[in-house]
Amino acid sequence: MQGLYVDKTVRFRTDLPVPVPQAGEALIKIRLAGICNTDMEVVRGYTNFTGILGHEFVGTVVQADDAPHLTGKRVVGEINVACGDCETCRRGDKIHCPRRTRVGIDGHDGTMADYIALPTNLLYPLPDTIPDEAAVFVEPLAAACEITDRVHIRPPDRVIVLGDGKLGLLIAQVLQLTGCELLLVGHHPDKLALAERRGIAAQPAGRPIKGKADIVVEATGHAEAFAAAQALVRPRGTLVLKSLYAEKPAVDLGALVTDEITVIGSRSGPFPAAIHLLEQQLVDVRSMIHAILPLDFGTLALERAAMPGILKVLLTMLNPSST
Amino acid sequence: MQGLYVDKTVRFRTDLPVPVPQAGEALIKIRLAGICNTDMEVVRGYTNFTGILGHEFVGTVVQADDAPHLTGKRVVGEINVACGDCETCRRGDKIHCPRRTRVGIDGHDGTMADYIALPTNLLYPLPDTIPDEAAVFVEPLAAACEITDRVHIRPPDRVIVLGDGKLGLLIAQVLQLTGCELLLVGHHPDKLALAERRGIAAQPAGRPIKGKADIVVEATGHAEAFAAAQALVRPRGTLVLKSLYAEKPAVDLGALVTDEITVIGSRSGPFPAAIHLLEQQLVDVRSMIHAILPLDFGTLALERAAMPGILKVLLTMLNPSST
Repeated sequence: MQGLYVDKTVRFRTDLPVPVPQAGEALIKIRLAGICNTDMEVVRGYTNFTGILGHEFVGTVVQADDAPHLTGKRVVGEINVACGDCETCRRGDKIHCPRRTRVGIDGHDGTMADYIALPTNLLYPLPDTIPDEAAVFVEPLAAACEITDRVHIRPPDRVIVLGDGKLGLLIAQVLQLTGCELLLVGHHPDKLALAERRGIAAQPAGRPIKGKADIVVEATGHAEAFAAAQALVRPRGTLVLKSLYAEKPAVDLGALVTDEITVIGSRSGPFPAAIHLLEQQLVDVRSMIHAILPLDFGTLALERAAMPGILKVLLTMLNPSST
Repeated sequence: MQGLYVDKTVRFRTDLPVPVPQAGEALIKIRLAGICNTDMEVVRGYTNFTGILGHEFVGTVVQADDAPHLTGKRVVGEINVACGDCETCRRGDKIHCPRRTRVGIDGHDGTMADYIALPTNLLYPLPDTIPDEAAVFVEPLAAACEITDRVHIRPPDRVIVLGDGKLGLLIAQVLQLTGCELLLVGHHPDKLALAERRGIAAQPAGRPIKGKADIVVEATGHAEAFAAAQALVRPRGTLVLKSLYAEKPAVDLGALVTDEITVIGSRSGPFPAAIHLLEQQLVDVRSMIHAILPLDFGTLALERAAMPGILKVLLTMLNPSST
């Protein structure tokens, strides 16, 4: 089958074997795969990964011996493949299982291929009303939903989202639903305009912000933004970190204590919440699509996705040349 | 009257005027005052404070024109004198009022004197069953109670407290009441022994700790302990910061996100909780008293309190020479 394969570098291959599902797994024909910033990090060697790239997808189950009701269903799937057995899994926190593999990131082949085999307990069947181009956003949208899962936001709480990338735009839309007083701050006029068309107040980074916020979400991807985020949050307020920084910046911990700030590190989120928001059409994701390219354009698609200011690039496997 | 007065340095004075209570204030005869690490910081110039030192106290109300029911009552009092009018105060968060003064720290005369004038809304009358030597611990004990106020701790949650100073010992006793699996880690064998006599598991700092904790409380006072605390907390766990650090250490924010840690900066706490614990005799504070010295020994008392390993030094104003 075809796929984007990482082995020091990334290349398009046509000689990959179709995976053979193991006990408890389903074989899925991929329909669309999304390119995420994490994919670029994986290509750069962040996890020393060798295998098929990609973790965002929507596909159709073609074989599921242990869960025949899934056969033929259109599904999305979680990316953390947990052991199910350890103390962390038994606590119900499978996404932090210390023995887990991660689809397309670490120890498990990914979604930028014609097929993938995944444990059926990671799959979520989709309502027909969610088109593929929206469904492929379930994983990043779930990461945005994790904020409202962890932090109780009430109107008229004042919330500032720093960062107008893909994740920042999804977060702003999810938080808008709480009725909070929301402000999105970013560097890209076209992305801020996208938010403003959804009724979200937005302003360019660098312009002064008056007053403090109850909740500040740091989603710029830049570690130095932490200090700016800390300066914007009121005493006893909450600072949500959504970026995976490599740097270790100097942090004014004393001010966190004096102001009694709560800092919440937040990563993956609940798929059912994201599916529900898409089904109710409460969040717009399709205007974030920059391009949908065939899988054999994969390396070009990755280059395009890495360019500054580009939103979502998708790969489609629903073309006649795929097998 | 007599008092310990800070003006660049600290000295015992006998020429201080008895304060005149303003509208809404009570005049209080101080009975006992506690010496806290913050007092040493104030003497060193941390807030450029000029005035009477001290914020921990128990006293008797001698005059309260606006609240006559308080007259003759033995009381403790909060240290943040808020404006009561600003956005922060109206939110109910008076301890972070940006216009506040702080008793004996910043903008308001303190408690190491014969008398103090304080707003009556900061005062808490004491039950007769709490002796002065216990009541003087209400303020630091309230800071310990702030942890259970902010974090829901359930048995058998595993909790590690780093730091066996006065605050660490109070925190360990408060957290012990939750039925959690508790471990106190510190540098002082005599203090660890004090905790062990209360049935609290304790071990010397530096010895390896097996496994991760659900909740880690950092109360060492040393900013470099943050990384150690972070390494001890499990994914999705909670890290409580109780120390006021001056340094800004490098922090692995990316790991906070990957592990989805919640960091809680925590400072002052609820006086009613602390009074209730003392009344129920659920916490032992009297074994933490190193010495009770008369006020005119004040500068010697401060020197003693600053020595390594010394727990609580108290100043008494109930001697015949005071007026």
